[in-house]
Amino acid sequence: MSDPHYTDRKQVARANRAFYAALEDLDAGAMERIWADHDDVQCVHPGGELLVGRRKVLGSFGVIFDSTDSMRFELSDVLLQVRGPIAWVTLVERIETRFDDEVHEASATATNLFEQIEGEWRIVVHHASPLQRRFYPEGD
Amino acid sequence: MSDPHYTDRKQVARANRAFYAALEDLDAGAMERIWADHDDVQCVHPGGELLVGRRKVLGSFGVIFDSTDSMRFELSDVLLQVRGPIAWVTLVERIETRFDDEVHEASATATNLFEQIEGEWRIVVHHASPLQRRFYPEGD
Repeated sequence: MSDPHYTDRKQVARANRAFYAALEDLDAGAMERIWADHDDVQCVHPGGELLVGRRKVLGSFGVIFDSTDSMRFELSDVLLQVRGPIAWVTLVERIETRFDDEVHEASATATNLFEQIEGEWRIVVHHASPLQRRFYPEGD
Repeated sequence: MSDPHYTDRKQVARANRAFYAALEDLDAGAMERIWADHDDVQCVHPGGELLVGRRKVLGSFGVIFDSTDSMRFELSDVLLQVRGPIAWVTLVERIETRFDDEVHEASATATNLFEQIEGEWRIVVHHASPLQRRFYPEGD
């Protein structure tokens, strides 16, 4: 373990997985526990406005959960950075959602920012955006 | 000055303004100096893919500058957080671009992440996304 941040990186990766597990489980209670318990939290859903504060952020997941029968995420290009008590994860989300027998597939790029608060890594910013155009050919 | 982060906040705000000034000035050299000088830098333009590393990130601004005669940003809802050597700014961008006498207006939400490196606040993540739908009515 030559990387001094090995434990932090593992914990951040676990917190990041817990966030997507809460989404897949449509679990509002888990989502409440994953987000930091202060009003500086911020969230942008693909194509959505900037939401600030726990009420709006957690409420927006309620809106999503209410209009979703199931949701599956395939994550790729995961990059994780730790700097002391702050960490960020960027990744590509392939999202499959089902509602009323309709299947919707989409791709998004996401930045997730975590803060270590009382020993726990909590999410403070989730910013996801739709993938609509490319600056570089795929694979470049 | 009861806020111990007052100086940091001022410097981060200045770095954030410098980023948008470099965009408005279509100044590739300024952009090179504002971004951290390591390959963990990441950038998502509105609707675009996740770009990683200085070559791709700075190259993407070159693509934008080459297809733009002028660019103006009106920033609002600016929120700034500092945690030690890491800071993030979220905001709404109203963007007016001109190219070949065509004017294009758009809105985006952005998360800008800064890292203090050798005393200078440098941008390490810029994530901007198109504003296409709302979870809450405006003004709520």
